[in-house]
Amino acid sequence: MAQQTKVSMVKQKVKAWIVEGKVLPGEKIYSENELVKMFEVSRHTVRQAVGDLVHEGWLYREQGAGTFVSNRSSQSQIQPVSSSGKNIGVITTYISDYIFPSIIKGIESYLSAHGYSLTFACTDNDPEKEKQCLEAMLNRNIDGLIVEPTRSSSYNPNLHYYLEMEQNNTPYLMINQYYPQLNPPNIILNDENGGFIATEHLIKLGHKKVVGLFKSDDIQGLNRMQGFIRAFRENDTPFFSEMIITYTTEEKEVTLLHRLKEILISEDKRPTGIVCYNDEIAINVLNLLRELEIKVPDDISIVGYDDSYLTEASETKITSVTHPKMDMGIEAAKWIVAAVENREKDTVEKRQKVYEPELVIRNSTSAILKQHNSNKHVI
Amino acid sequence: MAQQTKVSMVKQKVKAWIVEGKVLPGEKIYSENELVKMFEVSRHTVRQAVGDLVHEGWLYREQGAGTFVSNRSSQSQIQPVSSSGKNIGVITTYISDYIFPSIIKGIESYLSAHGYSLTFACTDNDPEKEKQCLEAMLNRNIDGLIVEPTRSSSYNPNLHYYLEMEQNNTPYLMINQYYPQLNPPNIILNDENGGFIATEHLIKLGHKKVVGLFKSDDIQGLNRMQGFIRAFRENDTPFFSEMIITYTTEEKEVTLLHRLKEILISEDKRPTGIVCYNDEIAINVLNLLRELEIKVPDDISIVGYDDSYLTEASETKITSVTHPKMDMGIEAAKWIVAAVENREKDTVEKRQKVYEPELVIRNSTSAILKQHNSNKHVI
Repeated sequence: MAQQTKVSMVKQKVKAWIVEGKVLPGEKIYSENELVKMFEVSRHTVRQAVGDLVHEGWLYREQGAGTFVSNRSSQSQIQPVSSSGKNIGVITTYISDYIFPSIIKGIESYLSAHGYSLTFACTDNDPEKEKQCLEAMLNRNIDGLIVEPTRSSSYNPNLHYYLEMEQNNTPYLMINQYYPQLNPPNIILNDENGGFIATEHLIKLGHKKVVGLFKSDDIQGLNRMQGFIRAFRENDTPFFSEMIITYTTEEKEVTLLHRLKEILISEDKRPTGIVCYNDEIAINVLNLLRELEIKVPDDISIVGYDDSYLTEASETKITSVTHPKMDMGIEAAKWIVAAVENREKDTVEKRQKVYEPELVIRNSTSAILKQHNSNKHVI
Repeated sequence: MAQQTKVSMVKQKVKAWIVEGKVLPGEKIYSENELVKMFEVSRHTVRQAVGDLVHEGWLYREQGAGTFVSNRSSQSQIQPVSSSGKNIGVITTYISDYIFPSIIKGIESYLSAHGYSLTFACTDNDPEKEKQCLEAMLNRNIDGLIVEPTRSSSYNPNLHYYLEMEQNNTPYLMINQYYPQLNPPNIILNDENGGFIATEHLIKLGHKKVVGLFKSDDIQGLNRMQGFIRAFRENDTPFFSEMIITYTTEEKEVTLLHRLKEILISEDKRPTGIVCYNDEIAINVLNLLRELEIKVPDDISIVGYDDSYLTEASETKITSVTHPKMDMGIEAAKWIVAAVENREKDTVEKRQKVYEPELVIRNSTSAILKQHNSNKHVI
């Protein structure tokens, strides 16, 4: 495992403890020595991870006393007893990364204001963990559940938990995507159109050799890919081999970039545009291009997805497709409260909200230079 | 492997030889001894398989001379040189089993009448074999392709072959289901509604404890399951644990029936109705129930799907949901001819035909008897 991956792993686990309430605000975390043993990593890795977490505000240091958990309300599952006495569960693939804090902030702000308490859990996009989360939620007698599906492009083995909830009149709804067999109330994006506008933007700028990087284990990725293909088709842009690279959750960190690197270092195969599944991937691609001394947008234009804080994080600001984030969270919270307070009706009634994505143009994309404007490499 | 499974395996292989043109009409097939060695099965198994194939018209015997391949035009890939000189490829999951001969007969009858020749291949629902089929088809320079998707509920790794065809203006269309990312012209069934009407039929007959058996590796199965769940929901029938049993292609023969047997031999869990993914499964379930001395429809009602010849094959005639079969084949052939003869337009234009299923009621289903009409076993 690369050093950076080890650091991420340690950070991820510590954040999970905090989010899951295993360590509480004000509590001291394990010593460096203990963390080294626990994670079987070097002291250097632990020091870097803890340093990052302090920097990001998850932990704070007290001179001579040690390192403690910060009091960040949106990360803490321990809430004052809610005024309604009701508790809503939230299961997402991730909690403390990327756009998830914004979604969760939306959920939390509405629910707190309405006197509900919250219980968070994350699945790391693993159905086995989703099962554990669902069992834990059901054991706590939650009054309602907001769920982001796990690995939605495969058949989900946990559907019976949702049927059980429905049987018990415990309302649930899904965000970002939903399991089609359950056809639950859901709040999603038009991801097909998002993939389409990202791709058409590049095509309209004169790009023909545009590669798409899509996550294949979530429906979101497959829908964005569908829009990507449609943009080629509707703009009479020739398909070419290796125009699509897919990856799974496990392949996100390393394999995807290896595959991309192969086509970048080949003069013949190098694209002039890249459509990324999301901004996280776009940042990784930017880093790879920097390493290969390929300029963005002069040599290659890049489009991200989710319009997250990452689009502004690098020296190149990333063109990206909007995601409602906090607004989606608020909407989900509103729905679940309505369902909890008026059970009979809302659980049965099929409801869906689809956000239409928009493109936010920044400086990672530009019109193609003349010398690129040929397309020899059609299949 | 059970004796019946071995017999099926031998029949399957011999039929594949015939369909793929490895043995031609009029040619002698291998001797019993050779078949015994080839398949590593008993002489008894070979004799039974060959007997079945003679009975089903695939083979014929000549006294003293041996066993020969029948001349059944719909099973032979070798065609007289077509008058148009054009060749259409057909890739399905299976060819010689179940409803596939009817679909293929539809395709063949229309194409032959219009002077086209055909090339068949089957994938056994394995994406790796689909890849081989596609490569073989592309090497043969087919003029058009009719495809039934393989393992459609997972991301398909062969999409680039279809994009390549589209790039080369080789029209293709999909039947039964389609890969959503490609969004190709397609001719399908409303499987969600099929699952719904099958299930609602039982519910309207007073059944509450209805178990659904669904294939989870094809979208068809997941859509039927979606209809199954909706029928419970819309009829206010309580969900209960183990109301859905899913299986994959590999689990079809043995595992599925084991799982079902477990709930059948338990007084508590035994359902009064079973909705089967298709008639093949319904026949297997009938056999299992006979073995367990459970009466159909007195003790348990059964619904199949596809309205195939199997519904009339057993002593109990099976209530089933219609599938257009030969009509779907004819329609697919018409579309592909139109596309081949007017390429530019038809490949780009999105076309879809959705058949609405109907229920054909036979004597495997009946109103529930009074003593069953309780439902203690809600989750």
